[in-house]
Order: sequence, then structure tokens, then C-alpha cells
Amino acid sequence: MSTWRVFLSGEIHTDWRETIMDQSNALDLPVEFSAPVTDHAASDDCGAVILGDESNKFWYDNKGAKVNAIRTRTLIEKADIVVVRFGDKYKQWNAAFDAGYASALGKSLIVLHDPSLTHPLKEVDAAALAVAEKPSQVVDILRYVIRGHLYR
Amino acid sequence: MSTWRVFLSGEIHTDWRETIMDQSNALDLPVEFSAPVTDHAASDDCGAVILGDESNKFWYDNKGAKVNAIRTRTLIEKADIVVVRFGDKYKQWNAAFDAGYASALGKSLIVLHDPSLTHPLKEVDAAALAVAEKPSQVVDILRYVIRGHLYR
Amino acid sequence: MSTWRVFLSGEIHTDWRETIMDQSNALDLPVEFSAPVTDHAASDDCGAVILGDESNKFWYDNKGAKVNAIRTRTLIEKADIVVVRFGDKYKQWNAAFDAGYASALGKSLIVLHDPSLTHPLKEVDAAALAVAEKPSQVVDILRYVIRGHLYR
Amino acid sequence: MSTWRVFLSGEIHTDWRETIMDQSNALDLPVEFSAPVTDHAASDDCGAVILGDESNKFWYDNKGAKVNAIRTRTLIEKADIVVVRFGDKYKQWNAAFDAGYASALGKSLIVLHDPSLTHPLKEVDAAALAVAEKPSQVVDILRYVIRGHLYR
Amino acid sequence: MSTWRVFLSGEIHTDWRETIMDQSNALDLPVEFSAPVTDHAASDDCGAVILGDESNKFWYDNKGAKVNAIRTRTLIEKADIVVVRFGDKYKQWNAAFDAGYASALGKSLIVLHDPSLTHPLKEVDAAALAVAEKPSQVVDILRYVIRGHLYR
Amino acid sequence: MSTWRVFLSGEIHTDWRETIMDQSNALDLPVEFSAPVTDHAASDDCGAVILGDESNKFWYDNKGAKVNAIRTRTLIEKADIVVVRFGDKYKQWNAAFDAGYASALGKSLIVLHDPSLTHPLKEVDAAALAVAEKPSQVVDILRYVIRGHLYR
Amino acid sequence: MSTWRVFLSGEIHTDWRETIMDQSNALDLPVEFSAPVTDHAASDDCGAVILGDESNKFWYDNKGAKVNAIRTRTLIEKADIVVVRFGDKYKQWNAAFDAGYASALGKSLIVLHDPSLTHPLKEVDAAALAVAEKPSQVVDILRYVIRGHLYR
Amino acid sequence: MSTWRVFLSGEIHTDWRETIMDQSNALDLPVEFSAPVTDHAASDDCGAVILGDESNKFWYDNKGAKVNAIRTRTLIEKADIVVVRFGDKYKQWNAAFDAGYASALGKSLIVLHDPSLTHPLKEVDAAALAVAEKPSQVVDILRYVIRGHLYR
Repeated sequence: MSTWRVFLSGEIHTDWRETIMDQSNALDLPVEFSAPVTDHAASDDCGAVILGDESNKFWYDNKGAKVNAIRTRTLIEKADIVVVRFGDKYKQWNAAFDAGYASALGKSLIVLHDPSLTHPLKEVDAAALAVAEKPSQVVDILRYVIRGHLYR
Repeated sequence: MSTWRVFLSGEIHTDWRETIMDQSNALDLPVEFSAPVTDHAASDDCGAVILGDESNKFWYDNKGAKVNAIRTRTLIEKADIVVVRFGDKYKQWNAAFDAGYASALGKSLIVLHDPSLTHPLKEVDAAALAVAEKPSQVVDILRYVIRGHLYR
Repeated sequence: MSTWRVFLSGEIHTDWRETIMDQSNALDLPVEFSAPVTDHAASDDCGAVILGDESNKFWYDNKGAKVNAIRTRTLIEKADIVVVRFGDKYKQWNAAFDAGYASALGKSLIVLHDPSLTHPLKEVDAAALAVAEKPSQVVDILRYVIRGHLYR
Repeated sequence: MSTWRVFLSGEIHTDWRETIMDQSNALDLPVEFSAPVTDHAASDDCGAVILGDESNKFWYDNKGAKVNAIRTRTLIEKADIVVVRFGDKYKQWNAAFDAGYASALGKSLIVLHDPSLTHPLKEVDAAALAVAEKPSQVVDILRYVIRGHLYR
Repeated sequence: MSTWRVFLSGEIHTDWRETIMDQSNALDLPVEFSAPVTDHAASDDCGAVILGDESNKFWYDNKGAKVNAIRTRTLIEKADIVVVRFGDKYKQWNAAFDAGYASALGKSLIVLHDPSLTHPLKEVDAAALAVAEKPSQVVDILRYVIRGHLYR
Repeated sequence: MSTWRVFLSGEIHTDWRETIMDQSNALDLPVEFSAPVTDHAASDDCGAVILGDESNKFWYDNKGAKVNAIRTRTLIEKADIVVVRFGDKYKQWNAAFDAGYASALGKSLIVLHDPSLTHPLKEVDAAALAVAEKPSQVVDILRYVIRGHLYR
Repeated sequence: MSTWRVFLSGEIHTDWRETIMDQSNALDLPVEFSAPVTDHAASDDCGAVILGDESNKFWYDNKGAKVNAIRTRTLIEKADIVVVRFGDKYKQWNAAFDAGYASALGKSLIVLHDPSLTHPLKEVDAAALAVAEKPSQVVDILRYVIRGHLYR
Repeated sequence: MSTWRVFLSGEIHTDWRETIMDQSNALDLPVEFSAPVTDHAASDDCGAVILGDESNKFWYDNKGAKVNAIRTRTLIEKADIVVVRFGDKYKQWNAAFDAGYASALGKSLIVLHDPSLTHPLKEVDAAALAVAEKPSQVVDILRYVIRGHLYR
């Protein structure tokens, strides 16, 4: 397989995506990364800005979330591997939703989180083929499953 | 359709399921309800109790979450409608995972939560065919979609 | 097959459904009929009445249409045969939408309309296994495909 | 994803497709657009011209509609996003059929129409991830979901 | 599994279906048999009789074949096992079509024919889980796979 | 869509495939054609020659037919359009099998045959989006559905 | 869900199936058990006995294995849960094949084996939602996932 | 089809993969080969090395097997043809698991083994489109199904 498609879902307030992408690029791995829109304000406002403002907060959010879904669902459906990162802040229900969505589609799921979150994430982790604590482990997995060599 | 199958996912610390089931039964609606195991301790310990203890917390949780998944995934796959309830406590990532899983399978999704959770749940709500605030609204929806009559 | 499930989609202002159901029952055909909600006002208002009013007309309609979709999609997915009736009034885009939806799911599609509508319905008719002009012809088809006898 | 495939279904009497394609090209968006045959006469006559004339109008239309379906269904199935435009004239049942077909296949649906059509299109809109009024809004959505940047 | 559904496709000029059904009933096997319409004239004329005559032979046949397809496809899709019988007369392309259709749906295929037809049926036989020469062998297979006992 | 994949199934004793391919190439149509193995002897003997001889004719044929199925099924599953040609000789059950297989997979089916075969092919034709009599009509269809222009 | 369907695959030389079925019945669990044919000689000879003898050992086995597949695949596809038992003798590749087959279909997989087999079964166990050592643990799992109560 | 994707599963202690790949390359066949990780130690240790050590042997193996599954399942799902080789040593349940997994996905399965293994592999062989004894036969099959010419 010439290119592996990896969708990086979840937490948007740290630079874990950049770490994974930079390290993968440094290793010259044949991976095409994709992600949801990670600009929080853009992600909140896209529906209202593009399709017209909404005074009612529910519909304001609903409009934006659906526009984002065009991107997210398309890219998850195209992905070979879906990595979902949970941080220590916010509800992050969209991350868990993506994990469930990817799981039902039979995607290989990698979950990335601090061990302190093990208990509340147990159902998500149970659906995963790997549970990592650090972005570099995700890169190690990608290198291993793509190249077939294990660096000890 | 003689019987509608409805899976009630999510929050396990209030009596919303009983409310929905009691009101539906009082209306004599032809609904077969199902749910995840709602006994929190049982749900945590089932893997270790049945299959053998684990000293490592991660595997203790993993074992239990997988046993629960036998129930949860089977019932979601059989369901016509999946209702997911979010409360004001705990991470509830399993609820959001179920919503994503049900959504990818094309199930009709109803989300039930307080308006105060609208913003963090916007991606989940965007996948739903109805967003309710009270259990009685879920019953009203079931009555309407099954009977085809609207009680005003 | 002990029971055939037939969904009757489309026009709601004439009694074509009753005609089909009455004649089928008179013939004692083992058919379980279902249909969208055919009470026009209920179908328009169900979202707002059950889930809360909306001042914005778009969301008022959107809320209702989604609640109706819980019924419609579930029943189409369960159906063996989908009959779609087009009348001479109104836009009836929901009928054509149902026909496309049923067609993509591989359901046997029967379209029922006056010959005067042949040209604008040509794409819908092209996806059908039968195009009838009168409700009694639909009953004749049901009797034939279920019983295997042709009454001349 | 290097290229997004977008099918532009529906109304064929205004230049909305050209507007979307021109603006997308001007932005250098990596989109491969496709569409049904938009030459009305060709679309009507293709069956009879290629496969032989039909004196009966129903079969004349049927033959053509099926040849068109070879193009339309193939392209919808390959598409990531299906945009369906409704104008103010004609029955346009083929547009609604395409919307239903795309929806059942799980495609991201964008509906484009004047607000005056909101009520009769409510079931179609309810299946969409975005409802736009102007072609430029469709381009804005494509730019946003592909590039991930929101231009305010 | 309380009931096995078996569709008996193909040749309609000998009594092989009755043989299989009688012997199965004599053994009290829990099988629900179904079949295409086996009245040749009815099968030819159903479209024209029910939906209106056609002077053009192609459309006369087309109309009838589609009405028959409502029965045939529905029953094949519901079947667990599809038995296809080839006789020594006629083209029987509908039988081979049903075999291909059933095979693509993953149904268990049993082909029933005289050894003299082995060569022209090799592609059909290659898709089958059993190739029988006599109806009684089909009954023996049904008894074996349902009861799990082999009568020698 | 940059390339359309067309599988040419059926009759192997006339040059209809070459006609279609030559005319398509002359028109510079972006089509990738594929076909079953059309060397009759090779198709019969491939199993025995590659995997070892068989004295029993049934298994000789079975072995070969399965090796051919590796090619045929893979290419049908990749195809956008499946053209099936029926000639005036031989049983051609493999052609009808391919038509049924392609139909169940939802491929666009074009059937090519002389009008004298209309009656025995009515079930196959009923599953097709076009029924042509001459190879040049297939090329005309490909040109039309790919280019969107109708040459009268 | 009124009845859970559980397929018991694998080892046929001990009474583990009877243990599971007896204990489940004693608990009055609403489970419909099924299994491959567990009479070793019948399973080997069914093809030749029913469809005719084969002198070549490969085809003798092939014929029988395919007849058994009619039973096995149908029952696995109908199952909600597939339990696969590995013993300490024989190759048992059919058991591992069934596990892979069930896994690809998304069935809930429970593997039952002695800890001494952990290493060679690691890929099979990795696809399972539970790995048990004793039949009684399988019953405990069934009781828990069906009843939702954990007996400690 | 410009490139055929072939996954080479199973036995890792002889050079059969290299033989197939070398001979295919020498013939300039357009095949993209892939395989599980064939470095036995790496395959055993990858989970623990990348994601952290495990003192419990079961989880040590489980972690590794799941990481390997990311590679294996992705590549099997992308493959057109899956070749599974069984040798004369070890349990090789992962090979049989892959065969079942590939079979349920509808992949063309080729099994490669010594005739001495025919009886225990009968269920696996029964799901295959070809059963070969030597790697060169697999290459001959690939050449034949891709090129369409039979070299005698």
C-alpha cells in the first residue's frame, strides 16, 4: 500500500498533531494525515459565518457542527487508521463520538491519553487496537505497521 | 411493524430510563427497551469477577469494558432507535461513543440532555434526529412515530 | 415468507392508501402496511409541539421533518416493497426523496401516478419495478407476487 | 485527501454549476466536479437516439432515463459530497430522488435553494448537512471543509 | 434456528420442487420453501395483464419480468439457501442470473442438474457449496445441515 | 471521474469486444476495459494445467472455473459498468451468472444481444439500464454517459 | 431482545458444548444455541455419502467441507455471539477459520481455551471480547450480558 | 486494472514469499504484494516495546497481537487476493484466522500447502478459489488471471 491515511481526531489545545506529523515526516513515512478543523473559533462559527447568523444558540451550534461533519465524516470514512486524543480539559464528547463512529466502520482505532483517564475511557480503549500515552508511540506504531520493522 | 426496539444509552445515575419505560408502558406502546448494564459496580467489575482478577488497573477495566461491549454492541445493532442521555456529572465518554457507533450504523438517534450542555454536545446533537430535554419528550416522540398521532 | 412489509409513501390528500389496504385485506393478503404520518398538520407541527416551539420557520420545519424521519426511515428500511404515489398537486419532493432513498437501499419500488406525470417522473419510474396508474393495480401486483397466481 | 469529488445535481436552467466551478477553480480548490447531463434535449432523447426510437412516450422516456442513470448513479456513488439545487420551476423530482439516493448511501448532502422553498423541501433539508441559498455559499463550504480555514 | 428459508429457482417444467417439498415435509424439516412464479403463462403475461397491454414485444416482456423480479429478489434476499435447477431444455438464463445474484449476496448455493450439463455449468457450479443430480439429494443436504445427523 | 472501468462479459466467439474497444479508443474515451479470459481452451484448462490434472471431468472443470473466478469476480467488483453480450450459440450460463452477480452488486448493467433473444433474456434485460443490439450502441452509450454530449 | 443466538464453534472431542447448554438451560437463559455438526465421521463423510463417492481424497474432503459450510456459515451469520473453543489436540484450523470469519462479520467473539495455548492463539484472542478458560465462564458471561446482573 | 494487490499470509519460517515475489517481478507482473510482519520476534514484542512492557504473558501477547492487527486487517481489506500458506510446524491459527477473515470479506482466497495437510485444512480449502502446493503455482495463477494467457 503506497500511502496510509490517518485521521487525527480529538483534543485541539496541544500540539500533539504536529508532533506526530513532524516525527512521521522526519522518518519519511508514507502517511497522509488529516484532521478535523482545529481552529476552535472557526469550528464554532463556520455555520453562521457561511450560511447566515442564528440568534438561537442551539441552531448556531447545530449549523456549525453539521458543516464540520462534512469534513470529519468524509475523512474518517477514507481513513485506514483513526487516532483519537483525549486531553485533561473540556468534555471532548466529539472525540468519543468520532471513536465510536470509526469503530462501527471497522477502522483501526488508536487512542492516545494520559493513564489518569484510563477508567472513564475504558469503553473507548476497549474498542482500540492500541492505547498510547505519548504521540511518539503513535509514530512508532505507524512506523512498525507500515515498515514492518521494530526499532527497540 | 409490531415492535420497535429502543436502546437507552448513557447516564446511569438518575431514573430517566424508568421514566421512559413506565410512561411508554402506561401508553401501551409496542416498544422493546434495552440498555447497557446500569449497575455501576457490576459494569466495572464484570470482567475480573467472571474471567479472573487483574492487578493492573488498565487490564481490569479493559476486561470489563469488553464484556460489557458484548451486550452493548449487540443491542445497538438490533435497535431501531438509540436514545443517548447525558447528565451533568462524569466524563460520559461511553455515551458519546455509543452515539457515534449508532450514528455510523444509521440508527435513528435521539439525544437527551439539559440545554446547558448544548455547546459541548453540538457534534453529537448534529447527528441526531431529535434533541430532547426531558424523558417525557422521548416518550412523546415514540408515541408519535409509532402511532402517527400528535397529541397537542 | 409469512408476511410482506409494504411502505406506502407519498401523496396524502386522497384515499389511495385506504383503497389499497381495504382491497388487500378483502383478499386476505399477508401484508403489513405502513406509511408516513398522513395527518398534514401533525406532520408539520410534531417537532415544535413535542420538542419546543421555534420562531424561525426554517428550524420549525427542520425539527418536524427530522422527527418524521425517525418513522419514515425506520419503516422504509424494514420494508420489502415501497410504493410511492404522486398526485397532481403540491411539490411532493418528500415522495421523490423516499423513492430515491428506497432505491439506493435496493427495495422493490412501485410508483403510482397518472400518465400525465410520466415525463417529469421519468427518472423515478426508471428506478421502479412497476409503474401503476390505479391503486387496484398495486393490489393486483401484491396478490400476484405473494400468491403467485395471475387473475386475468 | 488530494481530491474531493462533488456531484452537482438538480436544476439545469440557470448557471449555478458554472458559478460554483468557476469560483472553486479561482480558489484553486482540489475538487473534481461532476453532474448529470445538463443539456435538456439530450437528456430526454438519449435513449431513443442511441438505442432506437419508441413511439410510446412512456418507453421513450424510460429508455432515456435509464441511460442517464448509468451516468448519474455511478457519479453519485463515487462522490464525497452531493449538492442538490432546486429552482423555482418544474417538478424537479429527479433532484429530490438524487437527494434521497445520496442520503441513503451516506453521502454528505448540501441542498441549495431559495428560502421560499423551505417548507416543501423540509424533508430534503432535514437530510442535509448544509442548506445554502447561494452558489457562493457552497464554494465557501467546500473551501472551509477542504482547507480548514474560515474566511470571515 | 427455528426455520430455514430455501428458495427454489430455475426449471419450471418438471416436478422437482414438489419432490423436494414433499420429501422435506415427510421428514418434518423446519423449512419454509419459496419459488418464483412457476406458471409459465402467468409469468410471461403478468406485466401486461396487470399494468396494461404492450404491442411491442420487448416492453411486454420487460414489464412482466420486472413484476416477477419483485417476487424473486425479495425472496432470494430473505433466503438462507438458494437451490437452482437446470433442465435439458430452454435457455434458462433466468436460472443462471438468479445463481449469480444469490452468489453475490453470499447465499449458500446448491445447484441441481444432470451430469451432462457439467461443462456449460462449470462457472455456476464453481460458486456452489453443493452440486446435486437428484432432488432427493437436496433433501438429504437440508436434513443433514438442519438436523446435523447423517443417514447412510 | 478520470477513468471509467467497464467489464465486458459473455460471448467469446465474435469480435464484439475488439469493436467496442477500438471504437472507444478512436474516440479517446477514458475507459479501462477488462474482460474474462476469452481464449476458450485456456479458460477450460487453466485449473488442470496450473494446479495439476484431474481425471474426473467435474473436478477438471471445477478447478478451472474457480481459477477463472479469481479474475472475473475481482474485475466485476472493480467495474463501474458491466456489459454482458449474448450470442446465438452455446448455453452461455456464465454470461447470465455474471449479469446476476453484477446486478446484485449494484453495477450499471448493459446487455447486448440480437432481438431474437429478447424473450429468453427478459429477466436479464429487466435488470439492465440499457439493452443494445450492436456494439457501436454500447460505445455510443459510453461516449454519452462519460462526455455528456449526445451525437445525433 | 427475547432470544440471543450463540454459535458454539471448535473442538468436538469433549463435552464443553453440553456443559454450556445444560448450565444455561438450568439458569433459564433465553439463548438459542447452534453448532457445527459435531459427529466427526458424519462431518467427514457427508459430501460423499449424500452427493456421491470420490476416490480422490482431496475432493472427498472438499465435497464434505462445503456441505458443512452450508450449515456453519448460515448459523454464524445468524448468530449474535460466536464462542470458539480450542482443545489440546488436532490442528483445529476450522475453529480458527470460524473465528476469523465471525470477526470480519462483526460478531461478538468469545474464545475458550487453556492458558497453555495463549501464545499461539494470541491473534485470535486479540479479536475477542472475552477469553475464557472454562465453559462455566462462558455461561457467566451469557447470564451477565443478557440479564445485566453480576453474581459475585 | 493497473495493479493487483495480493496479501501473503501465514507461515513465516520458509522463503515462500520471496519466491513468489521474485518470480512475479521476473515476469514483470503488476502486483503490489503485502504481508504481515514476518520477523517473529518483532511480531511478538511490538506491543510491549512500543506501548510499554507487560509482566503478564497474556497481556504481553494481547498488546502485540493488536498492534499487528492494525497492519494485517488494513492490508487484507485492501487486498484483491489473499494467499495463505500453511507449513508443517506450529499451530498457525493466525493463518487460518486470516483465511476466515478474508473469506468473510469476499476476497479471492488461494491456499498453499503440502498435500499431507489436506484433511485438517479441508474447511479452509473449501473456501478457496485455488489450492496450490508450490509457490510457483501461485505465480502461475497470478500471471494467468492478470494477463489472461495460459502458459502450458
